[in-house]
Amino acid sequence: MIIVMRSDAAPEEITLVTGRLEELGATARVSEGATRTVIGVVGDLDVARHVTWDTLPGVERMISVTGPLRFVSREAQQEDTIISVGDLRIGGGTLTVIAGPCAVEDRDQLLEAGKAVKAAGAHILRGDAYKPRTSPYSFQGLGREGLELLAEARDVLGMPFVAEVIDPRDVELVSSYADIVRIGSRNMANFPLLQEVGRQQRPVQLKRGFTSTIDEWLNAAEYIYNEGNHQIILVERGIRTFETAARNTLDISAVPIAQSLSHLPVFVDPSHASGRRALVPPLTRAAVAAGADGIMVDVHPHPELALVDGRQALPPEEFAELMNDVRKLAEVIGRSLL
Amino acid sequence: MIIVMRSDAAPEEITLVTGRLEELGATARVSEGATRTVIGVVGDLDVARHVTWDTLPGVERMISVTGPLRFVSREAQQEDTIISVGDLRIGGGTLTVIAGPCAVEDRDQLLEAGKAVKAAGAHILRGDAYKPRTSPYSFQGLGREGLELLAEARDVLGMPFVAEVIDPRDVELVSSYADIVRIGSRNMANFPLLQEVGRQQRPVQLKRGFTSTIDEWLNAAEYIYNEGNHQIILVERGIRTFETAARNTLDISAVPIAQSLSHLPVFVDPSHASGRRALVPPLTRAAVAAGADGIMVDVHPHPELALVDGRQALPPEEFAELMNDVRKLAEVIGRSLL
Amino acid sequence: MIIVMRSDAAPEEITLVTGRLEELGATARVSEGATRTVIGVVGDLDVARHVTWDTLPGVERMISVTGPLRFVSREAQQEDTIISVGDLRIGGGTLTVIAGPCAVEDRDQLLEAGKAVKAAGAHILRGDAYKPRTSPYSFQGLGREGLELLAEARDVLGMPFVAEVIDPRDVELVSSYADIVRIGSRNMANFPLLQEVGRQQRPVQLKRGFTSTIDEWLNAAEYIYNEGNHQIILVERGIRTFETAARNTLDISAVPIAQSLSHLPVFVDPSHASGRRALVPPLTRAAVAAGADGIMVDVHPHPELALVDGRQALPPEEFAELMNDVRKLAEVIGRSLL
Amino acid sequence: MIIVMRSDAAPEEITLVTGRLEELGATARVSEGATRTVIGVVGDLDVARHVTWDTLPGVERMISVTGPLRFVSREAQQEDTIISVGDLRIGGGTLTVIAGPCAVEDRDQLLEAGKAVKAAGAHILRGDAYKPRTSPYSFQGLGREGLELLAEARDVLGMPFVAEVIDPRDVELVSSYADIVRIGSRNMANFPLLQEVGRQQRPVQLKRGFTSTIDEWLNAAEYIYNEGNHQIILVERGIRTFETAARNTLDISAVPIAQSLSHLPVFVDPSHASGRRALVPPLTRAAVAAGADGIMVDVHPHPELALVDGRQALPPEEFAELMNDVRKLAEVIGRSLL
Repeated sequence: MIIVMRSDAAPEEITLVTGRLEELGATARVSEGATRTVIGVVGDLDVARHVTWDTLPGVERMISVTGPLRFVSREAQQEDTIISVGDLRIGGGTLTVIAGPCAVEDRDQLLEAGKAVKAAGAHILRGDAYKPRTSPYSFQGLGREGLELLAEARDVLGMPFVAEVIDPRDVELVSSYADIVRIGSRNMANFPLLQEVGRQQRPVQLKRGFTSTIDEWLNAAEYIYNEGNHQIILVERGIRTFETAARNTLDISAVPIAQSLSHLPVFVDPSHASGRRALVPPLTRAAVAAGADGIMVDVHPHPELALVDGRQALPPEEFAELMNDVRKLAEVIGRSLL
Repeated sequence: MIIVMRSDAAPEEITLVTGRLEELGATARVSEGATRTVIGVVGDLDVARHVTWDTLPGVERMISVTGPLRFVSREAQQEDTIISVGDLRIGGGTLTVIAGPCAVEDRDQLLEAGKAVKAAGAHILRGDAYKPRTSPYSFQGLGREGLELLAEARDVLGMPFVAEVIDPRDVELVSSYADIVRIGSRNMANFPLLQEVGRQQRPVQLKRGFTSTIDEWLNAAEYIYNEGNHQIILVERGIRTFETAARNTLDISAVPIAQSLSHLPVFVDPSHASGRRALVPPLTRAAVAAGADGIMVDVHPHPELALVDGRQALPPEEFAELMNDVRKLAEVIGRSLL
Repeated sequence: MIIVMRSDAAPEEITLVTGRLEELGATARVSEGATRTVIGVVGDLDVARHVTWDTLPGVERMISVTGPLRFVSREAQQEDTIISVGDLRIGGGTLTVIAGPCAVEDRDQLLEAGKAVKAAGAHILRGDAYKPRTSPYSFQGLGREGLELLAEARDVLGMPFVAEVIDPRDVELVSSYADIVRIGSRNMANFPLLQEVGRQQRPVQLKRGFTSTIDEWLNAAEYIYNEGNHQIILVERGIRTFETAARNTLDISAVPIAQSLSHLPVFVDPSHASGRRALVPPLTRAAVAAGADGIMVDVHPHPELALVDGRQALPPEEFAELMNDVRKLAEVIGRSLL
Repeated sequence: MIIVMRSDAAPEEITLVTGRLEELGATARVSEGATRTVIGVVGDLDVARHVTWDTLPGVERMISVTGPLRFVSREAQQEDTIISVGDLRIGGGTLTVIAGPCAVEDRDQLLEAGKAVKAAGAHILRGDAYKPRTSPYSFQGLGREGLELLAEARDVLGMPFVAEVIDPRDVELVSSYADIVRIGSRNMANFPLLQEVGRQQRPVQLKRGFTSTIDEWLNAAEYIYNEGNHQIILVERGIRTFETAARNTLDISAVPIAQSLSHLPVFVDPSHASGRRALVPPLTRAAVAAGADGIMVDVHPHPELALVDGRQALPPEEFAELMNDVRKLAEVIGRSLL
């Protein structure tokens, strides 16, 4: 931590800062520059970090050098986290493919989608029973009935599934059905929900808030990790910017950045990022080439009839074609699809 | 609703759209322009609105003319909503002042702050017992103990208080203590929480998500209203932009825009918007002059010791001075402080 | 300047940095923290500042403590800059009002608008002869003919005028007519144009780029100042954000922030910020209350017929009414309108 | 064009709109919906488009259905534009690689970089003689001397070059040397400069403004095209967002979007988008996989000594390695490197 004094700071103002630092158990290293004094702070920063030094007289600003991440950073763990779901290994050089409908609508829709994505080579089925919707008048998901249909699809297809949870009171229920539970973009900073999924045993997909920085995303993962659950998959899904040509702007750079800052696997969801079917294949290819550990793609047997986000779903035949490219690109990039 | 066809749409593609519209109970009005056909849709749109028309062949895009708001829009109710809390009337031409510490830290801090803001003319005390924090290692609030201190302060000062709730499981508890419950910015799209506060009886302050559009904010209010609670106060508190000179960018235009689109009162929180003490007075003055129905200001007896957001809190004497300006500006603008 | 080393930096990597710093004439102050080493740099930084230290092995990042502003910062000059235009004094506690049509369309339109704004109390006439337009097919301004009409209006009304310049080759022409020349938002980072207006004698209005940080804005002012022209008026006019309810988001906080960082006067243009007539009065009131040194408002005798930006222009009677509020607010805030 | 009336619009307000439309030569098609009337406008829209209908009484808003692009849209020309530079063919299924230093610093630096990128398989050399810099005190380029060094490098290496122009007065000079002239991101809305490069004969690279929408970018291309120069290469180079982990956010979706809206080739500049060397390889791979028509990469023989943007430049050996991946990815994607 560094405390920068104002250019007109008085000597006693500098002494006030260094004195308080020492009271808090930290050590102050004072550098007098040509125009201002800078105080480097070393030692135990746990307390000093939370003081708002810049409200003290003579202080211009405080600069944090190390972040508060204890567990999810690369500094805390060098090797990639690898997550096992049945025989699947997620992270550590593999490329995992998740596909299926955005929302579970009925048995036929789910099974038809599931068979198609399984045949095309997807590893995990997606399908949500609880949907957070901007308007209270939009379809909100089938709830428990949806989870039962997903469990049935798992048995029929021999394929694990991931499902979203949006209420801390539903975490136990969802994790009793799903192989992986997901925190959606709108809930990335729903801290009671993060803590609740941190206390159960299923791996957790943590989507990036569409308006959250990468730093906030990693802090959200820290919430989960800190409760005892270390099986966390980060998912980039586009951020909100001034550009309105697509629903959101896929932040493809977030893949290598998050991978360099953290040991957790990083996936990409090109469907929710773009909101438009035609953009899903090029963005999926970009995600694989950028080195993502996995992709998650909306596939619907009849996109034009979908109750949620139909305009972004691929029909089965386009998904199968896309998977051919995915396999070739993964080979170039040196990732295996198992 | 308007459906715009592509310039190369075939006649049968147009017929497909109009046919499906009629199946859904809506009426299609076809206009053939020089380069493309546009289909106006009238009649009952509740179903047609949720179809993703732009996935049909030949369709370029769909334009929504009326939003899905049923209750909180000015079209639904012309007159301003007025909310009563004890003798106070919020909305409808008054200017309400809420002030106090960001978080409740202990009895002395709370009472000292409460006495100061009461003396300066504030109507309602703020002070939170539950704080959503980016890092799991930051101070998270005193919980139930904080609520009890707030209730004690209410009795001592004769002043109602507002407190944040961040977990649907705590809504009953918080609303059993607080005069007004608050949904914070990070929870604006936490739909289970919105529904829960919609089912209890206390007025609700709904802060705008710092990355939410005004339209999403009004839809969040619709969630609350739709559950039966009509006493909703909107609070603008700054949005996330590329500018980093202040914590967020206060969207002052949101005040007149939200007031024109909705009958609900609109407040401004200049403290969280800016994150810097020196900006709070000019932003408060701007909010009053722009016509806000209320302001909410962080005041701390000793900002340099605050556990949360100290750098944005005004000390009592600066708040008292600011209140002098607030009164004069309210008079120019034609608002009463009662 | 501070150089932060990686937590795994080798001693010889630290020596490489300190050695190079000394070669460049700067002094290195090394602080060894618990997890990493931080190097404070003092002395002459003009060269060291431009080295990309973070490409050296072992370096994590470089933090700039003082900005590169030499002239326009408050540190360089404590007292407010005051600019004289005829009898007018801009800055230093006054409130200057500029009003008139966005673009000069013809003599009648300009004189009608000019008489109205003069009668209502405006000090300076606005009206552009060159307009930067997104589409090449939109009206681009009357050019030299527009400047002649503006000069005629000045004589008839006894009122100075400000006009935009968009091409370095036109600077001489525009400044031979106008009392103040303006750099528009789209040209804030057009450095050859900034240098050219820096070399002529008229005061310069520098609008903030609608996507520029306050820091970049002050650096743009530095370009002008550095060429010898010290009479610079900063104009906040809204920034581009994710919110689309208004054309741009007026960054009202930029007024106190820019005033604290620089000695130059700071104006607000509520018309271009919002793009909507109904928002102009509340935003103008907010700007005055926030302490702006001036406001610039689009007024058109017949907004519905305007060739450019008619939807944001006030008709004369609404402007006159608004001026009544402006006078009262200025009095509360302690600013004179002369 | 569609004009949406307010729900409380009076019949005479509707008649006023339809009457004015007919005066302007357009045809009004009136649809009365359940809550409001919508007026479709067909016929010649060139005049009607520029009227600000929403300032008329009773009008809520105006919706543009077709954009004002006449030449650069896919609707205007179905086939891809192919640009020839010597033997090179840019666009139409090829993948063009541009590489070299950000700025020309001296003969050795330029030739060393040029030999390396040529050997690795780049087609075109980059190197700028004029640099737009945020601070007036940063290195601004070598000017004419830089152009002469670039011309010498072209002769030595047998490789065309592209160079930026930032002042309309320098267009003739730059285009007398360069094989391709570039409009940089900060100048995308510098309309006099766009017109000037539109009047000369060299192909033009048009970088997207880092705060411009894709629609504004295509309109900027329209400025160039409209002056007679049809050889335009679009370059996506990252946009400004709230995320600060990289310099800008590469908008990878802009590649397929711009390719679907326009027939012009679309390149990606991963170096300026990210500003960090470690991100350049994954972003380059992503750009190729997303279907870009070309890439432009900063390569510097000694990045740690670069005067401009050294932290984003690849050293020659890393670029050569990256080119191996580029070739394999291009093959998967079906693009040739000639």
